[in-house]
Formats: sequence, structure tokens, C-alpha cells
Amino acid sequence: MSDFFGDLAPVRFDPEAEGLAFRHYDPDETVMGKRLEDHLRFAVAYWHSFAWPGGDPFGGQTFDRPWFGDEMAAARLKADVAFELFDLLGVPYFCWHDADIRPEGASFAESRSNFDAIIDLFEEKMEHAKVKLLWGTANLFSHRRFMSGAATNPDPDVYAWSAATVKTCLDATHRLKGQNYVLWGGREGYETLLNTDLGQEMERMGRFLSMVVDYKHKIGFEGQILIEPKPQEPTKHQYDYDVATVYGFLQRFGLEKDVKVNIEQGHAILAGHSFEHELALARELGILGSIDMNRNDYQSGWDTDQFPNNVPEVALAYYEILKAGGLGRGGTNFDAKLRRQSLDPVDLVAAHVGAMDVCARGLKAAARMLEDDALETPRRARYAGWESAAAQAMLGADLATVAAPVEAGEITPEPISGRQEILENIVNRYV
Amino acid sequence: MSDFFGDLAPVRFDPEAEGLAFRHYDPDETVMGKRLEDHLRFAVAYWHSFAWPGGDPFGGQTFDRPWFGDEMAAARLKADVAFELFDLLGVPYFCWHDADIRPEGASFAESRSNFDAIIDLFEEKMEHAKVKLLWGTANLFSHRRFMSGAATNPDPDVYAWSAATVKTCLDATHRLKGQNYVLWGGREGYETLLNTDLGQEMERMGRFLSMVVDYKHKIGFEGQILIEPKPQEPTKHQYDYDVATVYGFLQRFGLEKDVKVNIEQGHAILAGHSFEHELALARELGILGSIDMNRNDYQSGWDTDQFPNNVPEVALAYYEILKAGGLGRGGTNFDAKLRRQSLDPVDLVAAHVGAMDVCARGLKAAARMLEDDALETPRRARYAGWESAAAQAMLGADLATVAAPVEAGEITPEPISGRQEILENIVNRYV
Amino acid sequence: MSDFFGDLAPVRFDPEAEGLAFRHYDPDETVMGKRLEDHLRFAVAYWHSFAWPGGDPFGGQTFDRPWFGDEMAAARLKADVAFELFDLLGVPYFCWHDADIRPEGASFAESRSNFDAIIDLFEEKMEHAKVKLLWGTANLFSHRRFMSGAATNPDPDVYAWSAATVKTCLDATHRLKGQNYVLWGGREGYETLLNTDLGQEMERMGRFLSMVVDYKHKIGFEGQILIEPKPQEPTKHQYDYDVATVYGFLQRFGLEKDVKVNIEQGHAILAGHSFEHELALARELGILGSIDMNRNDYQSGWDTDQFPNNVPEVALAYYEILKAGGLGRGGTNFDAKLRRQSLDPVDLVAAHVGAMDVCARGLKAAARMLEDDALETPRRARYAGWESAAAQAMLGADLATVAAPVEAGEITPEPISGRQEILENIVNRYV
Amino acid sequence: MSDFFGDLAPVRFDPEAEGLAFRHYDPDETVMGKRLEDHLRFAVAYWHSFAWPGGDPFGGQTFDRPWFGDEMAAARLKADVAFELFDLLGVPYFCWHDADIRPEGASFAESRSNFDAIIDLFEEKMEHAKVKLLWGTANLFSHRRFMSGAATNPDPDVYAWSAATVKTCLDATHRLKGQNYVLWGGREGYETLLNTDLGQEMERMGRFLSMVVDYKHKIGFEGQILIEPKPQEPTKHQYDYDVATVYGFLQRFGLEKDVKVNIEQGHAILAGHSFEHELALARELGILGSIDMNRNDYQSGWDTDQFPNNVPEVALAYYEILKAGGLGRGGTNFDAKLRRQSLDPVDLVAAHVGAMDVCARGLKAAARMLEDDALETPRRARYAGWESAAAQAMLGADLATVAAPVEAGEITPEPISGRQEILENIVNRYV
Repeated sequence: MSDFFGDLAPVRFDPEAEGLAFRHYDPDETVMGKRLEDHLRFAVAYWHSFAWPGGDPFGGQTFDRPWFGDEMAAARLKADVAFELFDLLGVPYFCWHDADIRPEGASFAESRSNFDAIIDLFEEKMEHAKVKLLWGTANLFSHRRFMSGAATNPDPDVYAWSAATVKTCLDATHRLKGQNYVLWGGREGYETLLNTDLGQEMERMGRFLSMVVDYKHKIGFEGQILIEPKPQEPTKHQYDYDVATVYGFLQRFGLEKDVKVNIEQGHAILAGHSFEHELALARELGILGSIDMNRNDYQSGWDTDQFPNNVPEVALAYYEILKAGGLGRGGTNFDAKLRRQSLDPVDLVAAHVGAMDVCARGLKAAARMLEDDALETPRRARYAGWESAAAQAMLGADLATVAAPVEAGEITPEPISGRQEILENIVNRYV
Repeated sequence: MSDFFGDLAPVRFDPEAEGLAFRHYDPDETVMGKRLEDHLRFAVAYWHSFAWPGGDPFGGQTFDRPWFGDEMAAARLKADVAFELFDLLGVPYFCWHDADIRPEGASFAESRSNFDAIIDLFEEKMEHAKVKLLWGTANLFSHRRFMSGAATNPDPDVYAWSAATVKTCLDATHRLKGQNYVLWGGREGYETLLNTDLGQEMERMGRFLSMVVDYKHKIGFEGQILIEPKPQEPTKHQYDYDVATVYGFLQRFGLEKDVKVNIEQGHAILAGHSFEHELALARELGILGSIDMNRNDYQSGWDTDQFPNNVPEVALAYYEILKAGGLGRGGTNFDAKLRRQSLDPVDLVAAHVGAMDVCARGLKAAARMLEDDALETPRRARYAGWESAAAQAMLGADLATVAAPVEAGEITPEPISGRQEILENIVNRYV
Repeated sequence: MSDFFGDLAPVRFDPEAEGLAFRHYDPDETVMGKRLEDHLRFAVAYWHSFAWPGGDPFGGQTFDRPWFGDEMAAARLKADVAFELFDLLGVPYFCWHDADIRPEGASFAESRSNFDAIIDLFEEKMEHAKVKLLWGTANLFSHRRFMSGAATNPDPDVYAWSAATVKTCLDATHRLKGQNYVLWGGREGYETLLNTDLGQEMERMGRFLSMVVDYKHKIGFEGQILIEPKPQEPTKHQYDYDVATVYGFLQRFGLEKDVKVNIEQGHAILAGHSFEHELALARELGILGSIDMNRNDYQSGWDTDQFPNNVPEVALAYYEILKAGGLGRGGTNFDAKLRRQSLDPVDLVAAHVGAMDVCARGLKAAARMLEDDALETPRRARYAGWESAAAQAMLGADLATVAAPVEAGEITPEPISGRQEILENIVNRYV
Repeated sequence: MSDFFGDLAPVRFDPEAEGLAFRHYDPDETVMGKRLEDHLRFAVAYWHSFAWPGGDPFGGQTFDRPWFGDEMAAARLKADVAFELFDLLGVPYFCWHDADIRPEGASFAESRSNFDAIIDLFEEKMEHAKVKLLWGTANLFSHRRFMSGAATNPDPDVYAWSAATVKTCLDATHRLKGQNYVLWGGREGYETLLNTDLGQEMERMGRFLSMVVDYKHKIGFEGQILIEPKPQEPTKHQYDYDVATVYGFLQRFGLEKDVKVNIEQGHAILAGHSFEHELALARELGILGSIDMNRNDYQSGWDTDQFPNNVPEVALAYYEILKAGGLGRGGTNFDAKLRRQSLDPVDLVAAHVGAMDVCARGLKAAARMLEDDALETPRRARYAGWESAAAQAMLGADLATVAAPVEAGEITPEPISGRQEILENIVNRYV
């Protein structure tokens, strides 16, 4: 055991506790016939919780972690502490980028060797731990070689490097029995159209994703391939802008059956959507894969990646997920970072505990709304007109036929209240 | 002749003029082998220029137009003045919504009868005028019957009413030999997900558009069917969010060969894009149809629909259009409104004259950049690596094959400057 | 009695009710030694609830109210229904603009005569009703005469007209024993700097406000004069941008003791602030006057004026207010409008009931946090270093003296955790 | 000479040049009776041009500069190259933060010793160079000790450290005959109100600024003290939000005669203003000090700090400055950074050259507009009504007196066109 967390004990469910405890998240509570843990499928993100130094565009490192540094020993200590956190929290899953877990080497071979050693270590630790791998992913955005893109780089050497990196990470994810493999195209976009061949870059991205899907089948990886949409930041424009854009992209390359989306609350907001919109849309398009549950500050125009803390908002998100039948192989990943002033180990634990409680409250409220049909009854009533035979017939008819009764003066629609405030009141009885 | 414009004479090209004149827009100037008029294909929008009363969310009518009112005589006067403006400006095109040109009747039949009478009047006027119809469209958003959507309304009666309205407008557009027919789904979206069946509504919208396309073929209309994307306003979310979203929607319903987009600068901005991004994307996806050239104030979070006035921005937009081979059957429509304090007839004329000059300057600068290959030479150089046989081979290879030389240590990419500032300097030599 | 609300009965506090009831708002519940009603001081806004027709920039009237129209009889019916709503809800206050309550006349005299007749009616009704006047205000923005400003209009005639209008409204507010008088400068700003004399307009605004304050003292009005900040919309820029801007303006004209602010949640958001920021800042500057409790949709870039529905957010707002010692002569005004699809009378009642419950929950949570010192204990601890004599001495010292111990190597600050997530968890135990 | 810039020669004014040259900026051109150089007073910012490594929130260093590192030798090489750039560009000014120019030491004393050595070097270089110091400033935001604020830190030790740092930097600025001293409070704000004592922090900031002003007088520094407003980023809220906020703050502490503002285009945009608004407001309030001429991308919600490249926008900014009588002791500082993909030395030179040309074009256009009275004639006409004796009398009258003629029916204002589009057309004749 490292001594990073000092005498912090595993966090237990205890609604009456004074100190650090889950007040709402009881993993074994049954909700809609399923354990809460199996609904929420929480994951800790290696990146923000262990690799991020606390910098921002105007300031450097604030965190003082014993594992910061470029040595393998540091990477091993980081892994030790990470698994201690997984254990303290009792989370069933974790996630990583390759760059989070191993030092960058002087060559591809050295980076891979470092990486493989940590994967070995993970495999060993996972034999004795509860935690499993929700997803792995390749960091194709931090190193300067990716500054102009990975799959979409004007330089084919970077395309090849990216392919090799994804292969390595997908192999490792497969080996660790990961539930999903994620691609976030943080540099697949542009800073200026003036130097960009948009058409060529999108073609490249489609080809690259097709290769990844083929490789998944070749190696027998049964997890989901997920794309994580984000509209911008770090780039001015990112090709995987939002769920609708990704869907159009997948269709164009015939991949809409093979690839799903990992939706992040903060990215939804940056794209001008609510989180629940992106979830509902992905559900209706059949591509809802997993979620990153980290909010943005509405006041800030960049990705703040904060732990969730608003129960009514979180409830509406899980409501859309429950309507989709749940998260499936996906999970609730906290791709959230501590505020850079939250220096202490206890901050890291408490942030997760608070977030898990917020999610548990949200999901339980959502489940009650769904079980009571509190929103679905009025929703069905609103669209009930479409159930008539005449209305259904319109859906197979041509324009002139549909128009005819209106032209004949037989139809004069009368508006009906949308009842938004009453529905909002209903939600407030549950959250 | 009405006396609305008083003694204003037709506006002429005269770079040295003191008064109202085109200083840059000479319709007969030849640019890249085509007349400027045939490049720009300017259109005046009936709606903002003749029907909009000058209101905003906190204030009512400011304009005092002799044709305001609900009588057919007023509608006829409005048409007289509109054609006088078309003539003063010498524009080759105009556009309308049904609701702009005729009084709303007490019934569908009465509205149509009013509409038909004005279409008759237009037909008669167009025999003797230069102006042609760029596009017609149906206003399916202003009347309270559309408050919860048109094609996506929960009430099938509104779906039918919308079908009848589009049929009427498409018939009239066909009769007037319109170059395009536009659909803007201003109410095809939602105020709250709580009362919305997103999946059902999108299905409805797809079915509706399919009907319209079929009907176009049935009546032999040779114009383009265009969708105008907008992300929000008046609704919280509009289904035709942006170009990428519309493309995905068209693919889903097999309509991507039949429908193109009408892109508006202001809508692009509201969706978090630049205008040139939306144009370039539509070009690459093969769905660039036409443009609405009206800017938003970057400082305001709503659609301000101002006349364009920034030449460098306009130049970048026409650059993407020229790269697409021009506007084709589309045009440059000013879906722009006077500021509500711009009360005088001369304001209406001057706003268009200034905007046409800005567009002419922009297009001419763009053409020079393109003819000089000023941006395309460095762009091709940036992607030149992809022209090698080895790079092309990668595009047909599988992941393991592409990865192999990296794994073998044969490839180590080195970043190359993106030269953004130098490219911006090049643009500034032209604008 | 009108029959607008049909058989709706006065809304009662009943946590177990199935139908329309207050589940959290018991006016007589004692919180921190004061009745809940006396804390919250709810007010209904005449404007949005009775005068707004349901229009938006792309659509017209949706509401079908028997009192819409330009006749005095309609204005009287409107008043009847308004007082019925006040009674149904049991609210202690209401608010109006002159333009909400009376038809515009053909002349100033006719408008005033109409206005006076309604004020007579109010006075009569208020004799028998519980409801009192929270504030009156003049609408100096809707009529076209104000299109270029009221006090800041380039035309001195409009300045005079505005003065006469404010005098009329302030007299009536005084007569009705209003608690406050509000000025919202919706047109005191500009659409373009190109035609604006910023310096002259700000001078005018200062002079105008000084006149109003003098007049208040002259007539013996004991209510507060309040300015309502808003950054933009309808204008591109509004001079009363936010609390900090108003404070600077008040100081410049020596009015910071005489005028306070009426802060609206939605306006705070449009200005790039949180509501609680604006409240805390006004409190610290000594100018917190009253609140408009209507939220904006974070996703929309304009004033959506929705009823509040997020309890955690509302709790943080009341927390700042309770720290200020409460609302004083101010109140909680719902300057909120129904969604334009919410057509039914019951929507109007339910929207207020839901909002009042949300506020009650928020205030009670805030009170518990404050009574427990849950946030104040850690806050005091964070700043405790400043209580030492040495630290206090620094506040009276000069730069060289303060610098000396650092230069001498005696001080090396060490960062301390800001504990944001732990504090957020604490809040979540209360909301 | 270092060999960083290779064989790049000093950049000359040559409108016909093919290569790197000023096409519009001739320092000796006379505009409104003053040399262009004396109008524009260009400055290069040490920070972005020499200290910034090319990182962003999702990626690390991209620039490969021989002077990166923590050694004094590196700092000296950096200074050599910086002065070479100043010379290549022929700029009359430069600016620095302490942290840009010297390595951070292990103690305050060591940092100061490093700093003093570089100031010695600067002094020596400046004896032989054209370049002078526009301003110095202290970086009170990057090091982790400032993570919770500098003057507003809850820890008084940080307040003392900040005082010592400012004293050091102000002394050095004085010694180098700097024209101004700047304070940017990048951490004077908060991440969450939950842990913040807003009132106490603002008091501290006022006290701190008062000390600085006193010290300036004490040492006889004749430069201006400038505050640089910014609304947010890195913090959620920054106290020096915008010009209006700073003005209120200065008044509150009696400093409005002693302190001016340094206005940055990008910060203006983040605060919801146009650059020209902030300039005009500062001018009218008498606190216009200097400018940072670096734009934000309107599409990005954070500070992108790009070199200016839109001439019409820049022209409107200089127009407001010329109306103020010019920049005085202030200057045009490029607090702009290369895009992180712009790796080459020539990018650094070309970015400045392009920006200087854009500014020269803008200023010259603005000067012509002003000399022609092109905007001022219509502006004066618009407000001419206020020049009448009756109108002027109103400004000294009380509310009842001003209201009287309206009440008597003697005044009925009639709206007059604001002519915005015509004014925009006028501007387009100049830019």
C-alpha cells in the first residue's frame, strides 16, 4: 500500500454518516429490477485523476503527486495509487489513455514497451481487484506530432503512427477484456480553413475508422467502438462535432451499425445542446454507447470538466438512458478533474463520492418517474392523434392526397397547450 | 408607379459617384469568365424588406408603410413597391414566403385564393420585368397553428395543413419558374424535451420531405429543393441544426441526392461555425445549394439578420463558393432586415446597395486569390505527402499493415509549420 | 368574478395533495424567525402574465385571452382576472408597467387618463384584497417613440416624454403605497456606435435618474428606487449592463446611496455571471434591492424569462440574500412568462405554483445551511490568516513595508486546498 | 548575433515587395500631423513571442526554441533573440512580465537576482537599441502560490509576496524608463463563490492598488498605472471584468484619477462587448490608457490571442482612439501568440509584420474618416436638438418642470431614422 490516501477507509453507504460516505449510492439497492451498481457502472478516469498536473492556460502544475515524473517507477506508483482509489470507492470500472499510464519513450518501441509493462501490471492487479476496464483509448492529441491531426494529419507518417498507436491500445483493451474502445478526435479538426483540405481530411478519418472496425472484428474484440463527439477545443472546429454530425459521418462510411457514441455532458453544452438532448438523439438513432458524466460551467466557454453536482439535471440525463434500456456495455465515466486548487488526496476521494451520490439520486428519481409513467402518459397523450387510422394512412400517402382534405376545408387545426410548466412541476416532485 | 421611393432613380455603377451608386458592383464586369451578375445572382427577400414591421421582443412596429394591413389592396400595393425596388436595384431575383405576399384568410381556401391572386399579379409583372424568382417557400412558423411544429406537430391535422401549404407554394414556384424551393423548419424542433417524442418527430420530418421531393418530380419542377439549417431560435432546438446534421438526416431518408442546403451566415454563427465552414462542408458533401447573405452581430445571441458589411469575411465565403464552381441554380439572397430604427425608404435602398457592393468586392477578391492560386498552392504543398505511392497504398491497407513500419521504427514524424499567419497575410493582400 | 379560471380554487399548502397545491410553500412556516411569506415576498408580474400575447420573433399571438384589445373595458376585465390570480395564489404583491394595465391613448393626456382610471380601480380592489404593490414602473421601450432611447434619446422631446411618463408612474406607485419604483432601461443603449454619442447619452441618463430621485424625495415616496441591469437585448448594448456597471454609474452621479438594483436571474446570465454572483456583489456594495426570479435557458442567447425550476440554483441565490439580511422592501417577482405553447388558464396558475414551491424549497435549504454555518465555518477558516495582528497591520502599511519580510526571505507561501468539491458536496446535503 | 532568424533582413516598407515587407506601415508617413510610428506606438510582448511554449489545454510544447530552459544562459539567449526581433521589425516598444524574462528561483531572493541580471542586460541593450519599454508587469498568476489569488489571496503571505513582486517590477520599469506599468489580475477572482469572501477580496484589491499608486508617486515614476480588464479565464469570474467595472472599482477607492485601463480586443469580446465599445467608454470616462491589439476568434469561448487581421474592425478601434486624441503614453501592444502549429522563426516575424500592416491600414482609414467628418457630421446632426436653449434648460430642471409641456400636450415626439446601414456604407468607403 502507498500512503497517499493515509488512513482513509473504503467509502461505505451510510445515509446518516457524518464523514465521508455514500448517502444515496448503495450499490446493492435494486432499482427497476437491477442493482444500482449495474445501472450506473461507474468508472474512474485515469487521466484527470492521476495524470493531470493541475495546469490551465495561465498557470502550471499545482498538484504535488509523488508519482509525477517520467520514470517507470513513477508510473508503477501511479498505478498502485489508482487501484487504491478504485478500491476505496468500490467502483466497478476504470478507463485510460496510453499516455496516462506510461512514460513517453524516445521511440515508438520504447513507448510501447513502457505501455506493455503497465498493462502487465494492470492485468496482475485486476486478477485480485473488483475493478474492470470500461474502456481504453489512445491519446492522439497531446504530443506535438499530433498538432495538425492524427488520422487527418497532412503528413501520412502521422496517420501511420496513429494507426500503430490505436492498434497497440486496442490490443491492450482486448487483453484486459475492456467493455469498449473509445476514439476522441481532439486534433481531428482545424485551426484555420486557410490551410485545410476539409474533404481530404474527412475521407481520411472515415478510412481510419473503417480500419479500426475491421481490426476489432479480426482480433475478436467484442467491446463497442465509441466515438466521443466534441465541437471544438482544442481546435477551432472538430469534425466529430456532436451526435448528429457523428451519425451523418458514420452513415457516409457505412459504419452506423458498428460504432456508437460516448457522450459527455460538457461537450454537449459546448455544442449548444443539453446533455439530455444528445442522449435522446443517440438513443433514437441507435448509437447510444456510454457517457462521460462531467459538467461544464455554463458561464465558461471552454471544457471545465467538473464533477456533476446538480441532481435535477443528472436525473433528466439518466431518464433518457433508462428509456434506452440502460447503459448496456457502456458506463458512467467521470472524465472530470478536480479544480486545480483542490490539492489534497481527500479532495480526490470526496469529489468522486459526491458525484456518485448525485448520480445515484438522479438515477433513482428518473426510475421513479419512469415507473410512474409520470412523463410518458402525457407524452403519449400529446401524440395520440397519430394513432388513428387516418393519421397513419397519411404516412403512406403522397403530398396531394395528404393535402386534399385541407384543400376541401375539412381540416382546421386548433392549437393545444404544450403544458411545459406543468411537466416541469411533475419533474420537481421527483428530484 | 407608387410614390414610396419618391424621386430615387435606378442605382447605377459609378465608382466616382457622390450619392447612391454601386462603387464596386458592375453587373457586366467579367470575373473568371462570367458576368458579375451571373456569379452573384442577387435576390431581394420579400419578407424582411416588405412584410416585417420593425418589431422586436420588446417593442412593436416602427415602420410606417402604406401597404401594411390585411386587405388585398394593400398586398397589391406591396407588390408594386417591391417590383419598384427590384427595378431600382437591378437585381435578377427575388424570394417570398406565402405569408409575406398575401393576407391570411379565414380559411385555407381564402388564404389560397388571396395567394393565387398575388401569384397572378407576379406573373403579369414578371413578364415585363427583369427580375425572376430565386425561390418560393411556405411560412410554416408564424401562425399559432404551427406553434408546436408543422411536419413534426403532435397533431396530424397540422401535418396535413402543412402539406397543403407546401403543395400550394411549390405549385406557384413551379408556375413562376423558380430556380429553387426552400424549406426552413423554424418550428421543427422543441421548447422542451419533456413533452417531445424526438424519434417520432424526426420520422415525420423525413416522411414529409420525401413527399415533397416526390411531388417535385411528379409536377416536373426542375428547381432544387433546399433545406435551410438553423440551430435554434425561435425554438430551443431545431432539427435542421447545421449542414452536417442536415446531411445525416438526408442520408437517413435516402434524400442526399435530391435535396441541398440554403446556408445563412447568421445561422452558421448561431450553430458555432463560421460561414465559410458551412459552405466548404456543404461543397465537400455535394449539397451546396444557395446562400442567405445576412450576418449576425457576434455580440448578440440571436438572429440579427443584418446586411453584410465586412468585406474580408464575405471574400472568404465567396472563395469557398467559387471553389465549388459557383452558386449554380442558387443565388445570393439578402434575408436581411433593416435595423428597426432605419425608417426611411432610402434606408431600404441604401442597405441593399451597400450589401451588393460588399459582396462584389468580396467575390472579386476571392476570384483573384483563386486565379493566383495564392492559397491553393500552399494547401496542395501541405498535403503533398499523400500523393506518394506508399501513402496512397496505406489508404487501401488494413490497420496492422499501416502500423507495421511504425512498429519497425521506420517512421518518426516531424511536425511542420501550419503557417496560419502567413496565409492570413496573403488573404490581406487581396481584401 | 370572471370565469377565466373556471372552477380553480385558491391554492393551498398540502404536501400530500394529488392536484394543484403548494407542496413546499407554507406561507406561515417559520424560517429563521420569520414567516416564509415575509421572507419570499412573492409578486406576480402583470406584464408577462396578462399583457404578453405569446409572440416571439418568428411568430405572433398564441394566447387567446378575453381581455386582449385596446378598449378600457378590456383593461378592466384584465384587472379583474389579475386580481383573481393574485387571490388564487395568495401572493402578497404584484407589479406593473403603465403599458401593461391601460390602453395606449392617442395623446399623452388620453394615455394618462386611461392609466389613472385603472389606478383608481386598483386602489379600490386593493382595499379588499391581500395583495399590495411591490413596484410600479414605466414602459419606456415598446412604443416606437422610444426606439432610439428614452432618457438617452437624441431627441430631447423623447427625454421630456419619458420624464412625464415616469412622473405619472411614480405618482401612482406612491399613491398605491408601492414598496419600490423600478427603472429598466431597455432602450438606454445602442444598436451601433456609429450613430451614438456614448458620452452624451450617459450624461443624460445620470441627469434623468437624479431628477427621479429628487422627485421621490419631493413627494415623500418612501419606497426604494431600483435600476434593473441587463447587458443587451433588445439593444446591442445596454448602459445598465450589470451590477458592477450600475454601481460605477451611481457613484459617478453621486446616487449610490439613493438607488439600488433589481436583479434578474436571466439578465445575470446574459451578462456572463451567475445569479448568485450578482446578488453577492450587490450585497457587498450595499445596493441589493429586489429580485426578478426568472431563469434563462442556458442554451439560448436571449432572455427566455422562464419560471424557475432548479432548486439547487435557487437555493444558492437565496443563500446570498439571507446573508444580506433578506429582501428588505424588495421581493421575489416572477418576471417570467409562460412558454407560448402553454395556452390554458391552468398553465398560468400551475407555473406560479411550481415556481413558488421551488423558491420555498430553495430558501429553506439556504436557511438550514446558514443556520448550520455549513459554508460559513470553512469560509471563515479559509480567511483566518487575515485576522492576525501582522496581517491586519499590512492593510495600513505601504508597499515597501509589506514587501520587506518577503525580500528578507521570511515568507514563503504554501498553497492550501480550496476544497471546492467538498463544499459542493456540503451544499448537496441541503438541497 | 544569434542565428535564430537566419538571414532574415530588417523588414522595410515596400508596397511592391514580393517577400516579407510592410506594404502599408511606413513609420515616417504623416497622418493627421503625426508620424505613423508615433500614432501606433507598436510593442512586442515578450511573453507570447518568447516565453510561451505552444501548449494548450490538450497538448504540450510544440515550439522548439534554443532558449527554452531554466538556466540564466537561456534567459540571456532569449533576450538576445528578442532584441533581434525588435530590431528586425523596427518596433519602438516592448513589454514584459518578470516571469517571461528570468528563471524562477528557489527563493524570492534568487528570483529577484535572476531578474535584476536580466534588467541589467536590458538596460545595456537599450542603450544601443531603438526599442524602449512600453510597460512592465508582474506575473502574479502562473506559479501555484497564486492559484487562489495574489492581492486577493485568502493567505496574507501571498498578499505580501505579491507586494514584493510588484515593487520589484515597478522599480525595474521605472529604471528602464517604462511608459506605463500594468496590472492584470488573472487570479483576482474566483472559481466558486462557495469558498470566497467577495467583499473581503475586493477590499484587499483596492488596498493593494492604493499601495501601488502611492509607491509610484514615492519613487517618482511618471508612467501610467494601468489595469487590464478581463471577465474570466483562467478564473470563472475576474474582478476587473470590463472597463465599466474597473471604473466603478477605481471610484470606490478614489483611484479614478490615478489609474487607467489597458484594453485588449479579445478580453472585450469575452466580456460581451466590441473592442470599440470598450475604447469609447474608457475615453468618455477619462481612463483610456493603452491597448493590447489581439483578437479572439468569435467562435471560441476562450482567449485565443490571435494577431489582428480584419482591417474594418481595426479601423473602428483606432477611430475611437483618434477621437480620444491618440494613445498618449500608451501603445499598440501585440499580446498575441502564434498559432501553436506556426513553428518557424519566419512565422514569428511574418505574424508581426502582417499585424502591423493591418493596424496601419486601419489607422489610416480611421484618420481619413475623421478628417472628412464622415461620421461626425451625421452624429452631430442626430443630437442637434439638444443644442437648443429649451433642451439645455431641461438639463437643469426638475422632473415636474420637464414633464409639464408633455402633460400640456405641447410635445409629441416623432421617430427619426437612425440610418445605421447608410453609416455602415460610409465606413466601407474608407476601409
